[in-house]
Amino acid sequence: MSEVDLIRWLQERVGPTSRSPVSVGIGDDAALLGWIADRELVLATDMILEGSCFLLEHGLGRIGRKALAINLSDLAAMAAEPLAALVSLALPRSFSLSMVQEIYEGLLGLAEEFGVALVGGDTNTWNGPLAVNVSVVGLSKPGTAVLRRGAQPGDWLLVTGPLGGSILGKHLNFTPRVREARRLVELVQLHAMIDISDGLARDLHRLCEASRCGAVLYVEQIPISSEAYQLSDHREPLEHALSDGEDFELLFAVAPEDGQRLLQQQPLRDLNVTLYHIGECIERGVYLRRAKGELQDLPPLGYLHSFAD
Amino acid sequence: MSEVDLIRWLQERVGPTSRSPVSVGIGDDAALLGWIADRELVLATDMILEGSCFLLEHGLGRIGRKALAINLSDLAAMAAEPLAALVSLALPRSFSLSMVQEIYEGLLGLAEEFGVALVGGDTNTWNGPLAVNVSVVGLSKPGTAVLRRGAQPGDWLLVTGPLGGSILGKHLNFTPRVREARRLVELVQLHAMIDISDGLARDLHRLCEASRCGAVLYVEQIPISSEAYQLSDHREPLEHALSDGEDFELLFAVAPEDGQRLLQQQPLRDLNVTLYHIGECIERGVYLRRAKGELQDLPPLGYLHSFAD
Repeated sequence: MSEVDLIRWLQERVGPTSRSPVSVGIGDDAALLGWIADRELVLATDMILEGSCFLLEHGLGRIGRKALAINLSDLAAMAAEPLAALVSLALPRSFSLSMVQEIYEGLLGLAEEFGVALVGGDTNTWNGPLAVNVSVVGLSKPGTAVLRRGAQPGDWLLVTGPLGGSILGKHLNFTPRVREARRLVELVQLHAMIDISDGLARDLHRLCEASRCGAVLYVEQIPISSEAYQLSDHREPLEHALSDGEDFELLFAVAPEDGQRLLQQQPLRDLNVTLYHIGECIERGVYLRRAKGELQDLPPLGYLHSFAD
Repeated sequence: MSEVDLIRWLQERVGPTSRSPVSVGIGDDAALLGWIADRELVLATDMILEGSCFLLEHGLGRIGRKALAINLSDLAAMAAEPLAALVSLALPRSFSLSMVQEIYEGLLGLAEEFGVALVGGDTNTWNGPLAVNVSVVGLSKPGTAVLRRGAQPGDWLLVTGPLGGSILGKHLNFTPRVREARRLVELVQLHAMIDISDGLARDLHRLCEASRCGAVLYVEQIPISSEAYQLSDHREPLEHALSDGEDFELLFAVAPEDGQRLLQQQPLRDLNVTLYHIGECIERGVYLRRAKGELQDLPPLGYLHSFAD
């Protein structure tokens, strides 16, 4: 069994012209996408690693799905339309072709759901653990991509769902908020947006830093997932909602009148998504407002990769 | 030290608008490339792994350079113009920020040489060895990308340089044949092209399979690198030239009259590249022709990733 068999299987599994504008997909030196007029390219890449982002016992299909899902979440955070994906695998030498296919099946299931063409990749074996890298290309109409910068003091902050406790399962089977973002961007002007990958507090800090503003979160309005309550450790459910990574909900800033309209209309209801108004942007500082009205500093809790000194 | 420090350093190192049409580079959820009219997108990804593609003692800068170079070689094989790159790192926990910067410095040196904008990435730490994934985006004028398919019986086969023995150093410091490919594609019609990454014999088989044709290589015309002679193992220099991986020269097929013209003009001389006529395409089968004229089967020698059974 070799990569030749894998590439053949993939070519058949994916089909020769799975999606316009892919003119050359899997199997050549590079993929070729047809002339794309009047669109901006949106590019992202994310790698997931055995032991730190997943365990093999999570199931290879779910690992493959996750590797693509986190990339689609990045495109969602820009309100872009996913177009194509490239996959690189670092495989332990013990992996068989059918195990590799299982990774791809999980990934392709999600790719099909979101109309993403798998257009290429790279397969390697080594003595290390499993690593999966996915790169994605998306499109957006010029001027419509939503960045982290752009939030203004006075803006409302909304999220697309309850937070915390994703380690109990959501981190593997979450739905990237691609459709939600694309609908929102049609309805209102999104000033700034980020996907919550490393915890609400940390990603809010990122949005604020990029936008050169501050924010206040209203404690009692932060939606806390039932999983955050289930986690029976020394931390409060609220702390899980603020600091757990891998929720992959969207956090975004809009003008108050747009926020009000979104809350009343709940335009994502048919997608089973409720919008929550969790805070507002201010001039500077990031705070948590308790019910009594007092403000407390909100540090960038959450996940951060650190290097050795 | 954390990824925040790294991203800041990268943003400053790369600069805010390093190259049009990059409108959003490092630091947001995804990168954004401006409206690209009348161009096809060319996409590739490649991962290199500690222990199988490099050793840490090769030097981190050269490892970073190689990770980008192999991707640029894929774009060269399509005769595409490199545009942007995304980098994912799986870092051993012992790595310091300055070690990560060393990887990036090597990569950025080559990126600058080829006008490639580093537009994003993902940095992770884990208990595994070092893995570096690079994805690249290139552009080509519609209809000008050169595929592996398209070679015809009667075509001449040419290569851009001597082969074999790259393990002695070239695999780390080779020049991706981007400029060469872009000049060739202006001069003649390239019927099919591939970069020799896994050995001449194996990559010739790939080109023939994609083109549904065969080929004969003329033993005495295959340029053998001095490194292939230096390698004092049990194998002949010719065998090294046929089967050693990571030469990253281009192998391409052209009509005989175009081949003749290229050989006479040697249009890449100012780039220190000599073109060699090493064989021709035939109806079927892949052979080696000895000086006496006899044909012998040429199997797909060279590197291939295999899976466990």
